[in-house]
Amino acid sequence: MKQPLRPGLISRQTDPDNLESLFSSLDGRITPNESFYVRSHFAVPEIDARSWRLRVEGAVARPLSLSSDDIIKMPSATHAGLLECAGNGRVFLSPKHEGVQWELGAVGCARWTGVPLAAILEAAGLNTDAVEIILEAADEGVAEKTSRPAAPIHFARSIPIAEVRQRDVLLAYAMNGEPLPKAHGAPLRAIVPGWYAMASVKWLTRILVSRQPFRGYFQTIDYAYWSAPNGMQPERVPLSELAVKSQIARPAMLETVAARSVYRVHGTAWSSRAEIKKIEVTTNGGESWQEALLLDAPLEHAWQRWGYLWNVPGASGPCTLMSRATDARGRVQPVAHDSNYEGYVIHYTIPVSVQIA
Amino acid sequence: MKQPLRPGLISRQTDPDNLESLFSSLDGRITPNESFYVRSHFAVPEIDARSWRLRVEGAVARPLSLSSDDIIKMPSATHAGLLECAGNGRVFLSPKHEGVQWELGAVGCARWTGVPLAAILEAAGLNTDAVEIILEAADEGVAEKTSRPAAPIHFARSIPIAEVRQRDVLLAYAMNGEPLPKAHGAPLRAIVPGWYAMASVKWLTRILVSRQPFRGYFQTIDYAYWSAPNGMQPERVPLSELAVKSQIARPAMLETVAARSVYRVHGTAWSSRAEIKKIEVTTNGGESWQEALLLDAPLEHAWQRWGYLWNVPGASGPCTLMSRATDARGRVQPVAHDSNYEGYVIHYTIPVSVQIA
Repeated sequence: MKQPLRPGLISRQTDPDNLESLFSSLDGRITPNESFYVRSHFAVPEIDARSWRLRVEGAVARPLSLSSDDIIKMPSATHAGLLECAGNGRVFLSPKHEGVQWELGAVGCARWTGVPLAAILEAAGLNTDAVEIILEAADEGVAEKTSRPAAPIHFARSIPIAEVRQRDVLLAYAMNGEPLPKAHGAPLRAIVPGWYAMASVKWLTRILVSRQPFRGYFQTIDYAYWSAPNGMQPERVPLSELAVKSQIARPAMLETVAARSVYRVHGTAWSSRAEIKKIEVTTNGGESWQEALLLDAPLEHAWQRWGYLWNVPGASGPCTLMSRATDARGRVQPVAHDSNYEGYVIHYTIPVSVQIA
Repeated sequence: MKQPLRPGLISRQTDPDNLESLFSSLDGRITPNESFYVRSHFAVPEIDARSWRLRVEGAVARPLSLSSDDIIKMPSATHAGLLECAGNGRVFLSPKHEGVQWELGAVGCARWTGVPLAAILEAAGLNTDAVEIILEAADEGVAEKTSRPAAPIHFARSIPIAEVRQRDVLLAYAMNGEPLPKAHGAPLRAIVPGWYAMASVKWLTRILVSRQPFRGYFQTIDYAYWSAPNGMQPERVPLSELAVKSQIARPAMLETVAARSVYRVHGTAWSSRAEIKKIEVTTNGGESWQEALLLDAPLEHAWQRWGYLWNVPGASGPCTLMSRATDARGRVQPVAHDSNYEGYVIHYTIPVSVQIA
């Protein structure tokens, strides 16, 4: 069952596999399955598709136990969905943060087919006091960080019910028209559009409807940060919504660019629940910014490609490019990483240093 | 303003002071102020009593700002209150756990006078969606454990509103009939009967009525543990209710006891929302247990003293004593520490090794 992965994927970690897309190879709007990044916390679980069940339990009127057949027979939906690891870009941070040292390629955009989570919850009948949906996975292991449970845990993450209602959360069994690959969560994974991808739980086995906010490891210790609203004490808050971001695919870091050429700078940009309104590019380290062209029409939950024709100057030497996205809600990429997010939410305008020759 | 402390207190840490009672000196049911243990997270804050205010904010109809005079004019209540540090007994654990290495003396019982928290909340008028009361203190510093906020924080802890209603939570300004000593939280501290003492926040400055469970450092990282209900993923849960416990005051650890004497073994016992029903003592390392005599009538929120006359055998050599409490709800002290609680909730039957000579 193990799908062959394109040699172009960069191994950031093995056992378990953590594989990065080559972002500089960006081409179409949809990332092919074989070059889609892979983020795993524990080993890929062995799942027998015939005996596998999705259980729906907790604060529901009718607990469910659904086979793959049951799920495939339900009305399906297909939509684009960008997934970005909350640590994408971590290798560029200084000081260093623990975790997988991703460059720009822990992000991708695919078309997902599956059953809306809302339909499953409707079939189960939510109790009125339900507040969160816990997505529990089959993969299991001992957690990494110091404040961890002693025994092995399953990967698990929750979503407030209000968010499930506002977003097209999908339980997906197909990716870009193919059966969902094992590395991407077969037989069933969640797709939570507009949230960092830790919420898009792979290898789903149980949906727990909870009467209180979930305090599992992956939302209190890992994938969480200290938030201190004005005048309040810091509280440990689970990561959730994607921040507005753009990335430069080409030129790649340290690429050599021909003097006096016209170079096609290009990349992608995305945000959460807002289309991208403007992309600006600087080719002189931020002294001046020019507007780039958006190449894709807005499409909900997808990224948009953009391009900019750069008249490369005649003088040889180093040169720094950056891109800056603004979304329809007026949110703009910052110039520096916000250290409150520790090694997560890295959406500042990452400089790309090139050599003109 | 710094009250002199009795030389009998054991320094476990200085800067800030963490001072332990000499539990072997146990005498009356009420612990005198000068020998009451002191637990501090940060330096004692400088508070100007005249300008000090208790603010009551958040999900309330009428935010309040109360001076000491305002509070003293309100109807007062006085009751006993046992305080036990959640790490009391930590020095006996193996493997070692980080934190202050208390023996038996991070516990005491005083009489507290103050205003019921319920009366303050009634004056402010709780909104119907309020779920927790956050108690915020004046003391401030950088937290200790690895997963901590970068900036200094105030000590802060929360109590669910249902608990405030069920317990006689007091905001105390007097301790054993004297003005509350500075080391114990003057001008005002909380007393949360039946909970570990981290909830009895000292140097109160603000009461925040919250619409969601508080996720501050002292309830997600410190003073918290992994709880895994049957079939569920582990969740990080704040410590709360005291566990049933008894301690032997005399003989003290490693005390020499006269052969063929009649030795008065004695100590105290406590639980949460239940009186102590039975104390058993073993003088042979657990081979056999005899019932001890309870010396105090039950008194809500107080400990009960107990005694047992031991006919010390004639043969010299080492000997191990333990005591075991059972409360009115049938809860019994365990024989071993439950490592799920890490370095907290140490209520197993701690052996006292003595020498018969």
